[in-house]
Amino acid sequence: MLKCDCKVVVRFNEADPLGIVWHGHYLRYFEDAREAFGKKYGFAYLDFHSAGFAVPIVTAHLDYKKPSRFGDELVVECEFIPQAAAKIHFSYKIFEVNNPTQILASGYTVQVFVSLPAFELQWDNPEFFKQWKIKHNIWV
Amino acid sequence: MLKCDCKVVVRFNEADPLGIVWHGHYLRYFEDAREAFGKKYGFAYLDFHSAGFAVPIVTAHLDYKKPSRFGDELVVECEFIPQAAAKIHFSYKIFEVNNPTQILASGYTVQVFVSLPAFELQWDNPEFFKQWKIKHNIWV
Amino acid sequence: MLKCDCKVVVRFNEADPLGIVWHGHYLRYFEDAREAFGKKYGFAYLDFHSAGFAVPIVTAHLDYKKPSRFGDELVVECEFIPQAAAKIHFSYKIFEVNNPTQILASGYTVQVFVSLPAFELQWDNPEFFKQWKIKHNIWV
Amino acid sequence: MLKCDCKVVVRFNEADPLGIVWHGHYLRYFEDAREAFGKKYGFAYLDFHSAGFAVPIVTAHLDYKKPSRFGDELVVECEFIPQAAAKIHFSYKIFEVNNPTQILASGYTVQVFVSLPAFELQWDNPEFFKQWKIKHNIWV
Repeated sequence: MLKCDCKVVVRFNEADPLGIVWHGHYLRYFEDAREAFGKKYGFAYLDFHSAGFAVPIVTAHLDYKKPSRFGDELVVECEFIPQAAAKIHFSYKIFEVNNPTQILASGYTVQVFVSLPAFELQWDNPEFFKQWKIKHNIWV
Repeated sequence: MLKCDCKVVVRFNEADPLGIVWHGHYLRYFEDAREAFGKKYGFAYLDFHSAGFAVPIVTAHLDYKKPSRFGDELVVECEFIPQAAAKIHFSYKIFEVNNPTQILASGYTVQVFVSLPAFELQWDNPEFFKQWKIKHNIWV
Repeated sequence: MLKCDCKVVVRFNEADPLGIVWHGHYLRYFEDAREAFGKKYGFAYLDFHSAGFAVPIVTAHLDYKKPSRFGDELVVECEFIPQAAAKIHFSYKIFEVNNPTQILASGYTVQVFVSLPAFELQWDNPEFFKQWKIKHNIWV
Repeated sequence: MLKCDCKVVVRFNEADPLGIVWHGHYLRYFEDAREAFGKKYGFAYLDFHSAGFAVPIVTAHLDYKKPSRFGDELVVECEFIPQAAAKIHFSYKIFEVNNPTQILASGYTVQVFVSLPAFELQWDNPEFFKQWKIKHNIWV
């Protein structure tokens, strides 16, 4: 199970007139966690690019359970969900640093591989992705 | 069927290093469409607030089918999906002005009612929402 | 005097916990006005790019006189300020549609020309910019 | 001389189609630095609010000397510039972690005090600000 944490402190400019984080910003938090995951496991955007691919998001889903506010110290947890298709699937959980059992938001994203610069969708897993899975003992 | 359109031109600052709209910005486009819907049908944030409620998003879902680029002229279509629960459900479709049959992105959002200022979740449909539904011949 | 207007309606997600537009978003409004100017006068980012140049901002200045709020209908006025140097200078004024004498914010931006893809700073006015000035009767 | 540093890693969603950080995002970096300053010196937004004031930005100025790109590790340095008027003046410098002598961007912001909730401009320094200055040996 490949997992990664990152810490996010809610910025003033991310809270809306209700005083709570505007819902769209959680996609930034998810991206922060993916980026941390990428650094930890050699799976970052820049690794994809040097292999000749981009990995655009094709699906994003978010569930909001409890609002966050300016100054809140959040943990964004990101987990790689292995699957056979030529896709990258991550699931996410967000909670306060001091209250890990109360999930504030959760969600998932799905990314596909497109070749650069033509943006052609790849139906098969690129070789570097297969190698990466093998290296990390992922068998699907 | 209550429906509304709004036009969005992709801004330079919304496109990412791949030259395509960063996926998170579509939640802004959805919000632009909800806002247009609100103006058209008397169902805007400010109407909710004057009735004593806020309507935070509890679920957002996005599917991206084809990227948009800086300068693209998009239509964001937003449709109210009636349901019995004390929730507001919208579905969305985005396409280019000149190519309405090619959907670029779609999605949905679910909002709940919370009382202001306490942010207490409302399990029953607020009276003003019932009246609004009746006025617009919505029977669920 | 080359001038252009564009209308901006303040979005919910642009207002901060104080209920007023977060100050950073005004740079988006300025960009919206530059883009409208570019369309009106054949002076858009895409024109620059097809001529082989990008025009990054090197200075931005903003003065905020009165806050704007969610739902406000603003006019962003943008004026080209001619000058001899190989720079693009715009000044801006923002006011409410219904109250043009009360300036809410003002500012200016300065852009330079860099060649693409090397990003080399151009000390001399590019030929296409000279032609554009002549076409619009700008003699500095 | 009251000073504070914070580290910012450039996010994918902050870079534009040119591959460089969109100029408007530097105001977020400045805010991150102000926030870090506030935590270090007891001078944060929440301290202002509990004293009954907000401190909106009335002027912001940015000079961009060299572009930053996705993944760059930046230091944002923020310095309090004492002055007699009822204003808060900060100056900023941004550079790469590994190259502190090459300034990428600099700027300043000016904030004023307004009472909450009425947003009345304060012409005199609020008492808590005077006390804060004395505590930190600031004599103007």
